[in-house]
Amino acid sequence: MGSSASDVLVIGGGIIGTSIALRLARAGLRVSVVDADADAGQATRASAGMLAPQGEMVQPDDFFELSRFSRDLYPGFLDELESLTGERVDYHRDGTLLVALDETQMEELDQVYRAQSQLKLPLERLSGQEVRHRLSGLSPELAGGVFVPGDHWLDSQQLARVLVKAAEKAGVTFHRGVSAAGLNARTSRVESASVTAPASTLSARHFVLAAGSWSGPLAQSLGLRLPIQPCRGQMVELEAAMDLPFVVRAGMHYLVPRPNRRLLAGTTSEYAGFDSRVTAGGLHSILQGVMRFAPFLKDAHFRTAWAGLRPDTPDHYPVLGPAVWENLFFATGHFRNGILLAPATAQWVADWILRGQPSRSLDSYRPSRFAS
Amino acid sequence: MGSSASDVLVIGGGIIGTSIALRLARAGLRVSVVDADADAGQATRASAGMLAPQGEMVQPDDFFELSRFSRDLYPGFLDELESLTGERVDYHRDGTLLVALDETQMEELDQVYRAQSQLKLPLERLSGQEVRHRLSGLSPELAGGVFVPGDHWLDSQQLARVLVKAAEKAGVTFHRGVSAAGLNARTSRVESASVTAPASTLSARHFVLAAGSWSGPLAQSLGLRLPIQPCRGQMVELEAAMDLPFVVRAGMHYLVPRPNRRLLAGTTSEYAGFDSRVTAGGLHSILQGVMRFAPFLKDAHFRTAWAGLRPDTPDHYPVLGPAVWENLFFATGHFRNGILLAPATAQWVADWILRGQPSRSLDSYRPSRFAS
Repeated sequence: MGSSASDVLVIGGGIIGTSIALRLARAGLRVSVVDADADAGQATRASAGMLAPQGEMVQPDDFFELSRFSRDLYPGFLDELESLTGERVDYHRDGTLLVALDETQMEELDQVYRAQSQLKLPLERLSGQEVRHRLSGLSPELAGGVFVPGDHWLDSQQLARVLVKAAEKAGVTFHRGVSAAGLNARTSRVESASVTAPASTLSARHFVLAAGSWSGPLAQSLGLRLPIQPCRGQMVELEAAMDLPFVVRAGMHYLVPRPNRRLLAGTTSEYAGFDSRVTAGGLHSILQGVMRFAPFLKDAHFRTAWAGLRPDTPDHYPVLGPAVWENLFFATGHFRNGILLAPATAQWVADWILRGQPSRSLDSYRPSRFAS
Repeated sequence: MGSSASDVLVIGGGIIGTSIALRLARAGLRVSVVDADADAGQATRASAGMLAPQGEMVQPDDFFELSRFSRDLYPGFLDELESLTGERVDYHRDGTLLVALDETQMEELDQVYRAQSQLKLPLERLSGQEVRHRLSGLSPELAGGVFVPGDHWLDSQQLARVLVKAAEKAGVTFHRGVSAAGLNARTSRVESASVTAPASTLSARHFVLAAGSWSGPLAQSLGLRLPIQPCRGQMVELEAAMDLPFVVRAGMHYLVPRPNRRLLAGTTSEYAGFDSRVTAGGLHSILQGVMRFAPFLKDAHFRTAWAGLRPDTPDHYPVLGPAVWENLFFATGHFRNGILLAPATAQWVADWILRGQPSRSLDSYRPSRFAS
C-alpha cells in the first residue's frame, strides 16, 4: 500500500463512499477508498432498496425535494453502472401499497393522501376491500390503504455489488479490511490518513469522510462533535408461494419484492451500539408485523436474516459538506435514506471538490450544525 | 457398490438405523446402511435432545416403562461411543423446569405433579415466585411450575455425528446419497434391496427398515399398510447473554441448553408433507412461545433455524418388530422419541436378529397393527 498519493481518499466503501469515488474517478481524478469491512457497507445491509421519498410526507420540505431529486437521478445512474459493468441492477417502478391495520392508521394515511393530493402527487385512496382486491391474501382486518404509483425500489444488495464493480472499472483503488484510525492535518489542510492493517498513512489532496455509523469517532479525532449513532435495522428474507407485485407497507413493517418469489421483510430501529447481529426479539417483531397485514406469509419459507447499522443523527438529516479543514468533505449520516440519496450525494461532493461548491444550497446539512 | 452381501442391510442412517447397525456390528455381523441423505437423519433435526420420559405423564403405561428403560441405557451407550471414537457427547442431568403461563396450565402441571408424586418420582412443585427464583429473567406472569430433576438432555446433533463415527469404527459400511427404491422378496424372505444412484441391488441375510418418515412408501412396496406421516418440527438456535442452567418448558415450547451460551428453542408440530423447510409462521410461533415465558431472550442473538421431519403414526407409538417377511424388521415411527428410544431399539432389533426375539414383549408396537 505505501503512501502513494491519490487525488481523493474516500473513507468508507459503502453505497455513499463508492458512489462518490465512482463520480470523481469518472471526472478523471485518481481515487482510493479505504473500508474496514470486506463487506459492502453496513447501512446497506439494513436497506431493502425502497426509493420512496413520498412515504409518510405530509408537508413538502427541502429534504423531500432533495430526495425526489436523487430518486430521479437513478435511471441514469443505473444506465451508467450497466455501461461500465454490463450488469443491470433490478429496478422497478411498481409502486407502494400503504395499508392501515385500523382506523387510527387509516386517519394517518388519509392525512398523507390529502397533503400529497394537494401537491398533485399521484396516489390512490383505497377501501379495505379495494386493498384486498389489489393483492389477495392480505388481512381481512385492513381498514384501507393508499397506493403510491410513483415509488420505486431496487435490489440494494445487487446495487452494492455492481457499484463496487463499476468503480473498479472506472479506476478506483479499494483498500479493503483497512481501518482509518485518524486524519493527520497541518495548518488548514488534512495531509494524510493513518490506517491499520498494515499500519500506514495514505496521502491525498482531498479527503471524504463517508464512514456511516463509524464517522462519529473519526470526526471526534479532528475535534468535531458529530453525534452519529448506529441505528440497527434487522431484515428477513422469505420465499413466498408467488411473486409480490409491489412494495406493501404498514408503518415500519414492509415487504419488498425480490426475483424468484423472494421478498424482504423489515425492519427494526434499535439503538444497540455497534452490535449488528439479528436478535430473537427483532426477528419476532418483523415476522409478527408483516404477518399481521399479510397473513399468507405464514407458510412462506424463511431463507435468512441479517442486520445493518444506519448512521442516525439528532435531526435525522444527513451530514454534507466541508468542515474543520478546507480539503475534508463529509458525506455521512444518511440514516434510512443512504441508497435513495447516493447519486445526488455523489454529485454534490464532486461539485465541491471540482468546483468549490455544489449546484444547490446544502447549508441545512452542514457538519458543524451539532458543534455547539 | 455392486451386490456384495452383508449379514444385515439397514435402510435409513438416522439415529435409529445407525444405533442398530452399531449394535449388530459390535456383535460381529457385517452391516451396511443405506441413506438417501448426506445428512444424519431427518427426525434428529427436529430434536433438541431432551431425554424426558416423565414429561406430562399422568398415568404410567408400557410406553413410559420403555422410555425409562431406554433413558437408563444412555450412560453406558455414551461410554461405548466414547471408547470407540474418543469423543464424549455432551450429556447433562440438570433437570427440566416446567412452567405454567396461567392457572389452567398450572392445573395441568398439578395433575402431573400429583400423579408422579404418588409413583414416588422425584419432582418439586414451585410457586410463581419460586420459579423465578430458580431462573431469573423468567416472566413475572408465570403462575408456577414443576421442577423434574430426573430429566436428562444431550446434544443431539453431536450424538448423530459421533454415532456415525462409532459405527464406522465398528466396521459398518455406509452407502450415503443412496435411496432404497424397493425390496425384492422370494417366498418368505427378502433377498435384496433395489437402490438408486447408482442403480444396483444390495443383498443381505437380514433387512432392517429404519427410514423414519420415508418408511411408509417402502412398506407399501411390500404390501404393508404403514400410515407413517412426516410431522415437521422447526428449531431455532439462539445465543443468550448467559448459560441456561437446565431445560425450561411451557407446553410445546421449550429451551434446551447448549455449550457457550447457546440454546435451542422449539418447536412446531406440522403436517406439511415432506417439506422440511423453516417457515415464517413456524419461526414466529417458536420465538413468541419461548419469549412469553422467557422475555429475557428478546436480546438473544439469532444464530440459525432448521426443521426436521418426525415419523408419526396414528397412535403416536413406534413400529417395532418383524413383518411381512421373516428376515425383515421394522424400527421406525418413533415420532418425538427417536433419540430417547435409540439404545433400547438397537438392543431389541439385535435380539430379534441374533436370538429370534427381544428381551421383553413389544407386541403393542408390531408393524401389522395398522393393517386392517
